Formats: sequence, structure tokens, C-alpha cells
Amino acid sequence: MPYISLTLQYDGTDFNGWQVQTKQPHSRTVQYTVEQALKLLTKEDIRVEAAGRTDAGVHARGQVISFWTNAAIPVDRYPRALNGILPRDVLVSDSGNVDINFHARFSARQKTYIYRVSSGTDLDIFWRRYSFHFLRSLDIDDMKRAAEHLRGRHDFRSFCASGSSITDFIREIKDCQVTDDGDMIEVSITADGFLYNMVRIIVGTMLEVGTGKKMVTDIPKIIAARNRGAAGATAPACGLTLERVIY
Amino acid sequence: MPYISLTLQYDGTDFNGWQVQTKQPHSRTVQYTVEQALKLLTKEDIRVEAAGRTDAGVHARGQVISFWTNAAIPVDRYPRALNGILPRDVLVSDSGNVDINFHARFSARQKTYIYRVSSGTDLDIFWRRYSFHFLRSLDIDDMKRAAEHLRGRHDFRSFCASGSSITDFIREIKDCQVTDDGDMIEVSITADGFLYNMVRIIVGTMLEVGTGKKMVTDIPKIIAARNRGAAGATAPACGLTLERVIY
Repeated sequence: MPYISLTLQYDGTDFNGWQVQTKQPHSRTVQYTVEQALKLLTKEDIRVEAAGRTDAGVHARGQVISFWTNAAIPVDRYPRALNGILPRDVLVSDSGNVDINFHARFSARQKTYIYRVSSGTDLDIFWRRYSFHFLRSLDIDDMKRAAEHLRGRHDFRSFCASGSSITDFIREIKDCQVTDDGDMIEVSITADGFLYNMVRIIVGTMLEVGTGKKMVTDIPKIIAARNRGAAGATAPACGLTLERVIY
Repeated sequence: MPYISLTLQYDGTDFNGWQVQTKQPHSRTVQYTVEQALKLLTKEDIRVEAAGRTDAGVHARGQVISFWTNAAIPVDRYPRALNGILPRDVLVSDSGNVDINFHARFSARQKTYIYRVSSGTDLDIFWRRYSFHFLRSLDIDDMKRAAEHLRGRHDFRSFCASGSSITDFIREIKDCQVTDDGDMIEVSITADGFLYNMVRIIVGTMLEVGTGKKMVTDIPKIIAARNRGAAGATAPACGLTLERVIY
């Protein structure tokens, strides 16, 4: 029985997140949309697993999903076949066969999220869906120094939204880069795993460093506090994109 | 009475074009959306004039509009005040007072449209709304040579959609550039005026040159034919953006 993985891109703006909601199974989630397209293509009820269960409004350019099927469709046909069925805001960019031991979520060794901030007054309408427009000026050098403090293996409880049921808050940020091309600031974070809302809380905190509301030297203290209240606000979903998953 | 101009950006995807439609005055056009926002702000029924009456699905990053108002609102307040009212797919990026002789459409000396083509298989979801995804490979050098033939003052009747009531088909293309950064091909056309669907027919024709269906040397013949049937297909609206208006 073929076991297949797909790489997905989506514009999260008009979705209620990735995951099918138990209470509203037919609400417009990416998972529901993709599973409906797979049903049309394969005539099977297919359940897919995803590397990252992105929240409402969060985008993806490198989401990875996997599923089993009995359909006799050559694996390289999936992108074009599905793209003919899927709505315009979801795109299958790659496909492949995967080993029986593969799991889209649990086999992922690293994921990279990029958070985009349009700064200044000259917002570009083409980036409005895909970035957070932040009007106040930012000290990028301070944000870069804050990023350095976040790298490494830490207990990131301060950067986890409350209500999460997990108990292990230790994650390793392999890379945390802040780049600025004048109009767009990108915060790129690669880690072995992410807590709930972790990137958005990190970015919200870094923006407070950028405006001077928090100091660069506050970052180690916020990490040490292991308390969500110590960190900054949660940055809006629209700026966040799941860029890559590494297995 | 203040006479004001605004620079607008919009994502044309979800609009039925710029112009309020006589038969469906409340259909979702950019003009209707902007006039409703101005009404909320000024408490006046305001009619606006635009530099270019873009078609359904066409975007703008530098549309210019003008209108008269009695409202005692400082002109520099318009962008922020309107952006608080307008939906996310319209953005006011500049404002100014204009002279009584100004007319957003008739005073425009030049307009620049850019048509974006995503080529190859690696479509970026962030560009899907704003470019035309063309799967076949293109000879960019041939397209550049075709662009050279289009420059200058010509009768562009072959590049005008039929049904237009105009009689003067002579326009001057001041500049026509094809650029290619690997993933995105941009055709930028600056002219003193444009016929109905002119850019989209030019680009459709250039794409036929790029794939070899038409020859570079066909371009002068197509211009000379003064017959819509001689040119190529009309490229889809989604790739087209009104970038700039020069007065």
C-alpha cells in the first residue's frame, strides 16, 4: 500500500488553521480542504498527518504531510492532479514515496519558521496578507542581539501560550536570524521543535526589544523566568510562515 | 473647496474591477469600496476619478484618484483615516492637494503597468494572486527582442480588445522592458496611454514569441495588420498591476 508524502504551500489567510476541528469538522481548515481533494482524486477517505499544525492565519511554503492510499496513481502525478482540484490558496509543490517508519510530524528533525514584519509607512499591498505591518521604527541591531540570546537549548516555557497540555518545555533553537532589507524584516527560527505560539511570542518579545520597551539583556531573564507573563505579546498570525521541514 | 488626490494600492483578486457598474452599482468594485469609505469619513457623497480604470482581477500599486470635498480634514490625515475604514485589500499610500486643472485620468502623461509571469514549476504561493503561472519554458531573449519592436509610436489596433468605441489607436510606448530573475519574469510597459486590454494582449503575444509559436519578426507585421486577430491571446488579469502614474 503506497505511503506518500506531499510538500504543501498555502496562504493561511482564509483558513481556520491546519487541523480539522472536532466540533466543526467541515470548517475551512487546510487539512479538511486537502483531504477532500484527496477523496475526489482517490475515491478514498484519507487522513493526512502534517509536520506542523499551523494556527489560523499562518502560512506555509514547506509544509509536509503524509498519508496511506490504495489508489494506483503514480506518485509524481499527485502535484498536478491535486492542484487541478485544490482552491487557489493551497498548492502541492512536491510528492514522494516514504518509508513505513516515516511520520510527517514525529520524524521531523528540524523546522524553520519565518516571521515577516513590514516596517515603515511604505507597506506593499502584495505583502499585506503575508507580513505584519508594524509602524514604529525598530532597532534591528538590538533585535539581532536578542536573537543570539535565544539560540541554543533552553526551557522555553516563557514563550509558550498558556493552556498547552505539554510538560516538556525544553527545545533547541538551532538558528535564529534577523534580516532587514529596508522594507521587510525577517525573523527566521530553526528548531528541533516548537511550543504552542512559540515563534509568535518570541517575535512579539523581539519587537518590544526593537522599540526599546524591553532590553536585550532582558532576554536571558525572560527565559529564566519560565513564565509566559515575562515575555512580550503574541505577534499576529499573518506574519508567520512554516518555510521548511527537515527529516 | 479642497481638491484632493490619493495614491491607492489594491489587490484586485476579489474585486469586479475599478469602475462602479451602472447595472450593478453596489457590486464589489474598488471605486465603490473607496467611495463608501470616503462617505463614512466625510459624510458626503463623493465621486472619485481614477487614472486607470483597471479591469476585474487587475492590481494596483500606484493608482491615482482625485475628488472634491467640503470636509475639513487635513489632507495628510487621509491615508491613515481611510486605511482604518477600508478592507484589507485596498490601501491608501499617499495624499495631496491638487490644482483645479488636475484630472486623475486626463492629466496623466504616462502610466506604467507591470505584468508578472511565474515560470517553471516552483510557483511561490505568495505570488499566486499577483502573477500568471506559466508552465512552459520561455525564450527570454526573444521576448526582449519583441519588446524592442513594440517601443515607439504605433497604431496599436491589433492590441486592442474588440468592442471598444474609441477611434484613435495611436499610442506611444516609451519603454518596454522584460526582466527575469529566474522565478519571475516581469514585462514593464510605460506609455502615454493604453488601449482596452492592450498590456494583456501584448503580453499574451510576447508569451507566444517566448514559446516559439510566433517569431520576433512577426511583431512588426502584427502591428502593421491593425487587426486584433493578428495578435496573440489576452493574458489573464491576475498578472497585471498598475504600478505608476506620472503627471
